[in-house]
Amino acid sequence: MAVRTPPRHSTDLRDSVGPRLTTIDTDIHHGIRNKTDLFPYLSRVYADRYDEYGAGGGGNLYAYNGGVRGYRADVVDGQSPGGLGAAATNIDMTIADLMDGCGIDIGMLTGSSMYGAAAMPDLDYSSALVRAFNDFTIEHWLARDSRFRFSMGICPQDPPQAAAEIDRIGGHPGIVAVILPCGAPRAFGQRFYHPIFEACERNNLTVALHFATEGTGVNPPPTSAGYPSYYVEARQARPAYYQAHLASMVFEGWFDRFPTLKVAMLEGGFAWVPPFIWKMDQDWKGLRYQVPWVKRLPSEFVKERVRFATQPLEEPDPPGAIHQLVEWMDGKNTLMFASDYPHWDWDDPRGTLTQLDPALRRRIFVENALDAFPKMRISVGAQA
Amino acid sequence: MAVRTPPRHSTDLRDSVGPRLTTIDTDIHHGIRNKTDLFPYLSRVYADRYDEYGAGGGGNLYAYNGGVRGYRADVVDGQSPGGLGAAATNIDMTIADLMDGCGIDIGMLTGSSMYGAAAMPDLDYSSALVRAFNDFTIEHWLARDSRFRFSMGICPQDPPQAAAEIDRIGGHPGIVAVILPCGAPRAFGQRFYHPIFEACERNNLTVALHFATEGTGVNPPPTSAGYPSYYVEARQARPAYYQAHLASMVFEGWFDRFPTLKVAMLEGGFAWVPPFIWKMDQDWKGLRYQVPWVKRLPSEFVKERVRFATQPLEEPDPPGAIHQLVEWMDGKNTLMFASDYPHWDWDDPRGTLTQLDPALRRRIFVENALDAFPKMRISVGAQA
Repeated sequence: MAVRTPPRHSTDLRDSVGPRLTTIDTDIHHGIRNKTDLFPYLSRVYADRYDEYGAGGGGNLYAYNGGVRGYRADVVDGQSPGGLGAAATNIDMTIADLMDGCGIDIGMLTGSSMYGAAAMPDLDYSSALVRAFNDFTIEHWLARDSRFRFSMGICPQDPPQAAAEIDRIGGHPGIVAVILPCGAPRAFGQRFYHPIFEACERNNLTVALHFATEGTGVNPPPTSAGYPSYYVEARQARPAYYQAHLASMVFEGWFDRFPTLKVAMLEGGFAWVPPFIWKMDQDWKGLRYQVPWVKRLPSEFVKERVRFATQPLEEPDPPGAIHQLVEWMDGKNTLMFASDYPHWDWDDPRGTLTQLDPALRRRIFVENALDAFPKMRISVGAQA
Repeated sequence: MAVRTPPRHSTDLRDSVGPRLTTIDTDIHHGIRNKTDLFPYLSRVYADRYDEYGAGGGGNLYAYNGGVRGYRADVVDGQSPGGLGAAATNIDMTIADLMDGCGIDIGMLTGSSMYGAAAMPDLDYSSALVRAFNDFTIEHWLARDSRFRFSMGICPQDPPQAAAEIDRIGGHPGIVAVILPCGAPRAFGQRFYHPIFEACERNNLTVALHFATEGTGVNPPPTSAGYPSYYVEARQARPAYYQAHLASMVFEGWFDRFPTLKVAMLEGGFAWVPPFIWKMDQDWKGLRYQVPWVKRLPSEFVKERVRFATQPLEEPDPPGAIHQLVEWMDGKNTLMFASDYPHWDWDDPRGTLTQLDPALRRRIFVENALDAFPKMRISVGAQA
């Protein structure tokens, strides 16, 4: 049984954003601070279950993380749960420290409190949690500051219900994308997920991927060799989380099946992209007869339709190699800035990619994000 | 119950190999041509089981492969089984076409007929199959041509029995390495496998990794998002198969625990290596307090102890990028040639990396392989 939550967004002001923009942040982790934050959006039975058992999803296997509970030490306080599926973010601090302090013109909220719901077996409970978190975000974050945008949550393990949730709130002007946690029993190019992407099309929403839930709950292990032992080791598997979905979307013909959709890869870094698209191109040339519905070089789909967030920004040896990588992946069109605030390893925009020439920097800090998220030009917030 | 097979290698001639060498091939796939080839090396009960059910291991999920049953069309004939865990190779053709035709001075046989045994639940049956294949190789391939070397098989899912097999035949002068299929329930840096690596140390054998068995039999799915749909898609996951083990070996402290062992990564390509070692280094700098037993930069372990086979040679865009990648990964010390003969996408040494300057080419085609496989300098073959 699905729990129905009425739409909570009011009519929002809209205005167009123009060339005055200087910095768009495509990955800001926001969340609840206490379980009670979600109670108003849950039925009694699910609120009780959430109170007593949490969001489940198998938990964080590598809970050591970095920093303090995965966050910058200065944002963690007594109110920060740090536990399963909860985030330490404080809206006042996010506005003062990040949005004002770093001069963010538009900031995309990507959650994290409910990523774990995508790894749970009870489709209705999982969907109710995600729906509650969406409503909480609309009421408490989007309504608070017109600079915020939101990559809404869904449970990809239940495509029809996910599509219904997208149709329920996807028209909100502050919602510009749907976020899919990368951990999944099957890759996102597969037909199983078509209802989700059809809903994204209907609502002009970008498809955002963010690592999470690999190897937890109902999902397969993080690697083909099982479970890494340590957090630092598990981080090395991250690029592959995105690669599995990207290869699936390319070779299943996803890009032609959904010709209007853009894809955003968040918090996966980008140094892995050039070798990966080279390999896809090379193998497509040799084996395209097996996938005759893929009619173009894989790299063409990627360069036209996929945008990669910069965080965590790699530190190649030699340092100048980063420019070579940016060139190889056509970074002037495919890269977009993300801070990953308030995680411990966040990238401050004031100190990130400062050596780029101004035109390229503007592509990465503004234009490519607007290209990746067509709805981002519409601002939000009745109270801002 | 383990089936005991007596050592079948006779006393071999040995001579030293010197500067006259021009080409070492580190990955030649040899195999049986009929199940009956293994019957002399199996107990009756296992021979019957093999005859009736095959090697099992879950089979090849992506059996379409490329070429003809995964091979060059000209090496496949009516005797080529093409099925589960069998190979189409013909020793006469391998000698005439590859060793003589391409001027291979030393060629390492890496099997493939019994990779699937590493994915099977019955430890004794699996081990018996691998042991039989090892004995078959010693008698029919190593004894036939002194240019051959062998990366012996084991079942990594049973470390004590694998160690016993290494001790049984690891002293054979033609056996220079132990091959581990990358598909595994746990990564090779973990303590579970220590008996195998201790046996490698005792026998001066290199640790070779080759993709195989990911997602088959008892092994986890090939990716964190489950099973790719197509062969061409599954190929994109290959680098991650090696990365999972390499990260494990680095962050478990494997390189210091086994300070004499070299590691060879076969048929994984190498364009992925620079971004991967950069990420390991970067994360080690930020998180080394979680793994205080790792006292050096991950890239230092890799550059000193790991060697990457060139095949399948990537085709970057722009083509000149390959030289940049070779430089970034210190390819003059870390790359070694492999043909992957007789697979459909093999690299002919006569047309591979021809634009390198002669000194670098010699490193890749001769010196680095000798460095990776210390026992390779000892030749083998009573009849050669």
